[in-house]
Amino acid sequence: MYDLAIIGAGPAGLTASIYAARAGLKTVVIEAMAPGGQVAMTERIENYPGFPEGINGYDLGYSFYKQAQRYGTDFIFENVISMDLAGRIKKIYTNQQTIIESKAVIIAAGSKPRYLGIPGEEKFKGRGVSYCAICDGPFYKNKLVAVVGGGNSALEEGLYLTKFASKVIIIHRRADFRASNVIEKEARNNPKISFLLDTVVEEVLGDDKVKSLIIKNVKTSEIKEINVDGIFIFIGSEPNTKFISNIVETDSQGYIITDELLQTNIKGVYAAGDIRNTPLRQVATAVRDGALAATQAEKYIKDLNNI
Amino acid sequence: MYDLAIIGAGPAGLTASIYAARAGLKTVVIEAMAPGGQVAMTERIENYPGFPEGINGYDLGYSFYKQAQRYGTDFIFENVISMDLAGRIKKIYTNQQTIIESKAVIIAAGSKPRYLGIPGEEKFKGRGVSYCAICDGPFYKNKLVAVVGGGNSALEEGLYLTKFASKVIIIHRRADFRASNVIEKEARNNPKISFLLDTVVEEVLGDDKVKSLIIKNVKTSEIKEINVDGIFIFIGSEPNTKFISNIVETDSQGYIITDELLQTNIKGVYAAGDIRNTPLRQVATAVRDGALAATQAEKYIKDLNNI
Repeated sequence: MYDLAIIGAGPAGLTASIYAARAGLKTVVIEAMAPGGQVAMTERIENYPGFPEGINGYDLGYSFYKQAQRYGTDFIFENVISMDLAGRIKKIYTNQQTIIESKAVIIAAGSKPRYLGIPGEEKFKGRGVSYCAICDGPFYKNKLVAVVGGGNSALEEGLYLTKFASKVIIIHRRADFRASNVIEKEARNNPKISFLLDTVVEEVLGDDKVKSLIIKNVKTSEIKEINVDGIFIFIGSEPNTKFISNIVETDSQGYIITDELLQTNIKGVYAAGDIRNTPLRQVATAVRDGALAATQAEKYIKDLNNI
Repeated sequence: MYDLAIIGAGPAGLTASIYAARAGLKTVVIEAMAPGGQVAMTERIENYPGFPEGINGYDLGYSFYKQAQRYGTDFIFENVISMDLAGRIKKIYTNQQTIIESKAVIIAAGSKPRYLGIPGEEKFKGRGVSYCAICDGPFYKNKLVAVVGGGNSALEEGLYLTKFASKVIIIHRRADFRASNVIEKEARNNPKISFLLDTVVEEVLGDDKVKSLIIKNVKTSEIKEINVDGIFIFIGSEPNTKFISNIVETDSQGYIITDELLQTNIKGVYAAGDIRNTPLRQVATAVRDGALAATQAEKYIKDLNNI
């Protein structure tokens, strides 16, 4: 029986565990993959404060993990498949038939970008393939980048990238954008932005870094190779919330809705980090969520014990 | 003319400047003291994620500062004395007669604990004198600590410290507490807590660390020396907001009120970090505020430019 079970060992979950374990709570973190979450798969992080030269994502994730271990958090590397959260004792079930019982739960399972699923995408992730303009845009000063997508985020991030890149090519599989008129107009008026419509990316090519893309016009079936220094893919993201459907209240995209103090619609159940319906998803925002959710969970558990 | 002026070079302000300058905004940070804010005066920080062994507060603050400098932020080390924020162009006035003009402003001037103002308090700050139980409590496992104060926070933090300390002596200058009944009752029932009422601390003594306190009973005028390993002072805190009175909306204690996206009641003016009316004041929460305020300010400036 734990005081607190935390689902997810990314920055939010690990920070929550640091705060909870330091506060004397018996704490367990349940993680399906390796510790660090999406951060661990990021080549370089330049905007997490405290590392003036930037830091490799794997190293940053691992340092969070070591810090969490130092205070005696337990780790279970299994996949959460369902939860029973309504009662005073919360139950979490894993794919290994483990049942974890706790007084409070923090869901910090993160989100992931939607991938194109094309050859080279995985290989060049962090070396020219990016899913975050705020994170990686500054690496592309005076470079040529492609942006893939047709929604608001693709055009907004494309516009953002014009601050750095010499040229931004927006590649969209249709002729029409799903973006708002204002943003589309702004993108069309920006001299740094050009468009390849009715076009899909078939492959990412390069050596140690991205060098070019194989693209195909879906109307004419014409195939071409275009040179780029980077490709930013904005075709949506999704929370890692398969196991929470119909248990915790979410928005239409599946992100968990919380109050200001990060409590979900269920007492004693909190959400932290990217899995939350939140205006910004960064390491710096995840650590705050972790700290706040843990201190709130601690108060909740204390009140439970006083009843 | 700057895009963004940030008041305060603590974790919130420096993080805001990292995000803003990376996004290409011409950014200035105005700081009255040294960079790092309260953090720089903290002996050791163990709960900021990324530093498994903990880090000296000065070093952490300096690393934030270096990271901010790397992206070309300007720094002005002067005291803000007034502001003119209502118009499209914001103006900030300093004690050196400098006038800083910007399109947007982030107020991140922090807060400070109220000090007792007794001999030894300043000398032993971070070496036995603390103002934060969450931060420093775990350093006092099986130690004897004093807590000074008579409000909710003194008793709550005193209760929190019983997780670590072998004994907690609550020292209060009156016989009655300002704390809620529930909390007072809980404190009185806790076997680790004892009370010294009608008592004030006159001096903090020690060698390299705190060893004892000189205390005085205000009714009998009796003076005694008691041995302690640490003294936690919770007699309130106050935002560093002298220069904002009647300019930005605050709560009754002077902390700035913002919406969810950290905007104050004035368009283009944001607040971040400890100066904000916020449920938790930690480095981990300040960096989130800085990142969010900067990305919001960036959107505001972009919209301004489009009008």
